[in-house]
Amino acid sequence: MGPHPAVAAIRLAVRRVLHDLLTEHHRTTAALPHEPPPPPLVLVACSGGADSMALASALAFESPKLGIRAGGVTVDHGLQPGSDVRAAEVVLRLRELGLDPVDSVTVTVGRAGGPEAAARDARYTALDTAAERHGAAAVLLGHTRDDQAETVLLGLARGSGIRSLSGMAAVSGAGGRYRRPFLELDRQTARKACMVQSLPVWDDPHNADPAYTRSRLRHEGLPALEKALGKGVVEALARTAQLSRDDADALDAWATQAEASVRDAAGLLECAKLYALPPAVRRRILRRAAIAAGAPAGSLFARHIEEVDRLITGWRGQGAINLPGKVVARRQGGRLVIRQG
Amino acid sequence: MGPHPAVAAIRLAVRRVLHDLLTEHHRTTAALPHEPPPPPLVLVACSGGADSMALASALAFESPKLGIRAGGVTVDHGLQPGSDVRAAEVVLRLRELGLDPVDSVTVTVGRAGGPEAAARDARYTALDTAAERHGAAAVLLGHTRDDQAETVLLGLARGSGIRSLSGMAAVSGAGGRYRRPFLELDRQTARKACMVQSLPVWDDPHNADPAYTRSRLRHEGLPALEKALGKGVVEALARTAQLSRDDADALDAWATQAEASVRDAAGLLECAKLYALPPAVRRRILRRAAIAAGAPAGSLFARHIEEVDRLITGWRGQGAINLPGKVVARRQGGRLVIRQG
Repeated sequence: MGPHPAVAAIRLAVRRVLHDLLTEHHRTTAALPHEPPPPPLVLVACSGGADSMALASALAFESPKLGIRAGGVTVDHGLQPGSDVRAAEVVLRLRELGLDPVDSVTVTVGRAGGPEAAARDARYTALDTAAERHGAAAVLLGHTRDDQAETVLLGLARGSGIRSLSGMAAVSGAGGRYRRPFLELDRQTARKACMVQSLPVWDDPHNADPAYTRSRLRHEGLPALEKALGKGVVEALARTAQLSRDDADALDAWATQAEASVRDAAGLLECAKLYALPPAVRRRILRRAAIAAGAPAGSLFARHIEEVDRLITGWRGQGAINLPGKVVARRQGGRLVIRQG
Repeated sequence: MGPHPAVAAIRLAVRRVLHDLLTEHHRTTAALPHEPPPPPLVLVACSGGADSMALASALAFESPKLGIRAGGVTVDHGLQPGSDVRAAEVVLRLRELGLDPVDSVTVTVGRAGGPEAAARDARYTALDTAAERHGAAAVLLGHTRDDQAETVLLGLARGSGIRSLSGMAAVSGAGGRYRRPFLELDRQTARKACMVQSLPVWDDPHNADPAYTRSRLRHEGLPALEKALGKGVVEALARTAQLSRDDADALDAWATQAEASVRDAAGLLECAKLYALPPAVRRRILRRAAIAAGAPAGSLFARHIEEVDRLITGWRGQGAINLPGKVVARRQGGRLVIRQG
């Protein structure tokens, strides 16, 4: 008798990612002279919640069969009383699964960008450090299809275009360090897999705290949307993420290529050549030029770019456009000049 | 004292569209010989609801100042008892506003594609006929920013990519016949404009009937989403529509251009050349080829195209792929053959 379907599903998802990692590992080490390189180390980032505990269990099961070493990291954000005790418990559970090395890392969460963004920044910095310290080939993250759907809706609420609809990537970070094996798996399957494997899981009270946007989305927004639109909404949102990501990548590539052709000898943007481009490509070039001039990407909204775009498409002698970061865009002699100050 | 801000807002929105129409009218008639052409006729499609009544009132106010003739059409879908009486009332109200000609058109709603799609198809056919009968330059539609947000969410639920996120266009139909002046105006403003102008409005019971997806979305889904994500959601969704539309247009243009370059002398798609394209462009070409071969666009989902795409990107000798409409895709000698039967 094989494992429970939920356990089979999480293992398959992890096995696929480990296969990819092994293929990449062999490709990069094949050219090395002399002795065979040590087997790669893969870490799992684990909060103790159902998603990442399921991920840890699948990693512990699959890695020995592929000759991969498996370890774990848990991050103590220090935001709740007793978080240190919980982190110690997670370390214990990961060791019980056979993972080695297992680290607990305490971080200090700042305030930049709001509580969720600050915690995320601190977490990834800690994971980066842990991966480098152990020379890990990859860090697995337990984000599920449900997390992806929530991320797409959060991006939608920004209204800043398809890049923000593209959610989380299956492979991200420096050198593709971060991998998300569960991105096409639903949260319920991860939870079920923990249950049938008798893995104790921890429910982060933040996940149910209506002070957090994501939590409100998870417990109220998304269920209401499912009720109105029908069951496949989560799947549709996840598919939208993938399609939007591919589309955004293609348009970024086009903008990169087009950008070189619309600059004059002095490197200034020529309005006539910009005018001839599709709006989607032109606005990407304008956005990049504003960022290159010093405008902070996070403060640069679609309406800013639209206003700059009107210097090209609706020219009637209008004055300079002020952008965030003290960047100014103006049209001079058929050229677009975007610079600070 | 000027008009109430809501009235000023609806009039400004209509004035902008009428200006555009007049500019186009002069451009197309300037080349004609002899006598000056008659002033253009603009029709408003009016259900008697707040949005289209506000639109009718603004059209009636603005058109004489621009030398434009203004008329109206109301469509009796025959779906509710007394719909004929209501249509007669709408005709009366439009005439009272000074519109002329005013038509009431009775349609028979079929069943194809579900009740909402069938009613929409019947309505547009009737509006097309009315526009042609009167030689109208344009038909104004009362869709607001709120309708646009709902349309984006309905598209999101399909999970079929950014074209379905692009909502309704400000200009659509044959020759740009349909115009939506209120696409950036919220429903509340239209309602307010009716109130302060003492225009009686009719609340379509279908709009509150939870049997309709759009109605559930309007009364439950969207409010819950706003509660989770904050007030700007409707605006963000409408902006997403515009950005997605521009992006989809640019990628469609790229696919059109690329398609010519990936066919061999016999007109077959060359796998190696397809492989070199960005996935977003390649999948658009594959989708078009499937539709050209006879696959019905509405039944062709992202997963179908992904499977065909694996004949290019994950070739391991797999067999033919069955697509809707009895279309079959297979790889033969480095070529992709997509045909019926």
